[in-house]
Amino acid sequence: MGFDLQQTIALLARTPSTLNALLRDLPQTWTLCNEGPKTWNSFDIVGHLIHGERTDWMPRARMILQHGESRAFEPFDRLAQERESQGKYLRELLDEFARLRSENLDALRAMNLQPADFDRRGRHPALGVVTLSQLLATWAVHDMTHFHQLSRVMAYQYREVVGPWSAYLGVLHCEGHGS
Amino acid sequence: MGFDLQQTIALLARTPSTLNALLRDLPQTWTLCNEGPKTWNSFDIVGHLIHGERTDWMPRARMILQHGESRAFEPFDRLAQERESQGKYLRELLDEFARLRSENLDALRAMNLQPADFDRRGRHPALGVVTLSQLLATWAVHDMTHFHQLSRVMAYQYREVVGPWSAYLGVLHCEGHGS
Repeated sequence: MGFDLQQTIALLARTPSTLNALLRDLPQTWTLCNEGPKTWNSFDIVGHLIHGERTDWMPRARMILQHGESRAFEPFDRLAQERESQGKYLRELLDEFARLRSENLDALRAMNLQPADFDRRGRHPALGVVTLSQLLATWAVHDMTHFHQLSRVMAYQYREVVGPWSAYLGVLHCEGHGS
Repeated sequence: MGFDLQQTIALLARTPSTLNALLRDLPQTWTLCNEGPKTWNSFDIVGHLIHGERTDWMPRARMILQHGESRAFEPFDRLAQERESQGKYLRELLDEFARLRSENLDALRAMNLQPADFDRRGRHPALGVVTLSQLLATWAVHDMTHFHQLSRVMAYQYREVVGPWSAYLGVLHCEGHGS
């Protein structure tokens, strides 16, 4: 499957409602638990997605269009949510994420990108040259990585109580693959 | 975290709306794609969840309460959805799953289970002796296993187009852990 802008937007647009359906008003036993020291709970994950909406995806898309390869993107701060989410409720983070995602997708549509734009190049501070379509595809797959993580974090809480069924439950044997 | 009936129901109750938010009316490029031969797409996954609602979770809970360890559960047919979903649309499967899950959770609440019931024992045809709480916890973690799979199947479609970002996207490096 090649890159397709409308299909990418269709997937990106569903993430806020999917997170809402899963997490809003879910008992805190699920949403505050993580997978151990230095791992993330639902609150951390939604905070991280918010920081991406603010500083990563659309700012980098604009930088590619404006500066091409001449300027590297700002490095992404993977721990920003520890500061920015402090004192907030999960429902506030879900609202904030939904608002930011909606604004960003409006801005993306307003760019009126054409297929020729998809190959425009930018510079990632660690990965080197990347293209606009790679950035936008990564935005969508990044959502999927965090659904993947969320389902694993939830499942982890019941890793003992499922007893011998653990053998059949793949999510309990996921090592996280570095995320 | 120990087994808790209300928390388990809270998570189980969210699965239909979460699947709806992610999958309903999503372009078929996302929902009909799988991870290669003999792997599942969204359609197969929802069909499999439907079959579980019909033949696995609540029928087994009733068998534990009625027969204890004296009768083994019926083996679960992991390929039933290939027959049962034929000719249906994904939106019909989502509706059917939501209806069955809601009916099953109503039936579970009506059982009015008490903590002493959680240790009641049944017999799994392959795993041997299991308890009612292990069965109900597995029901919830089984949902999470399939969210985990769904996010991976979606991400897989863009495994090439993300380019060098692949290195940072854990979901693209998930081997499925047998599911």
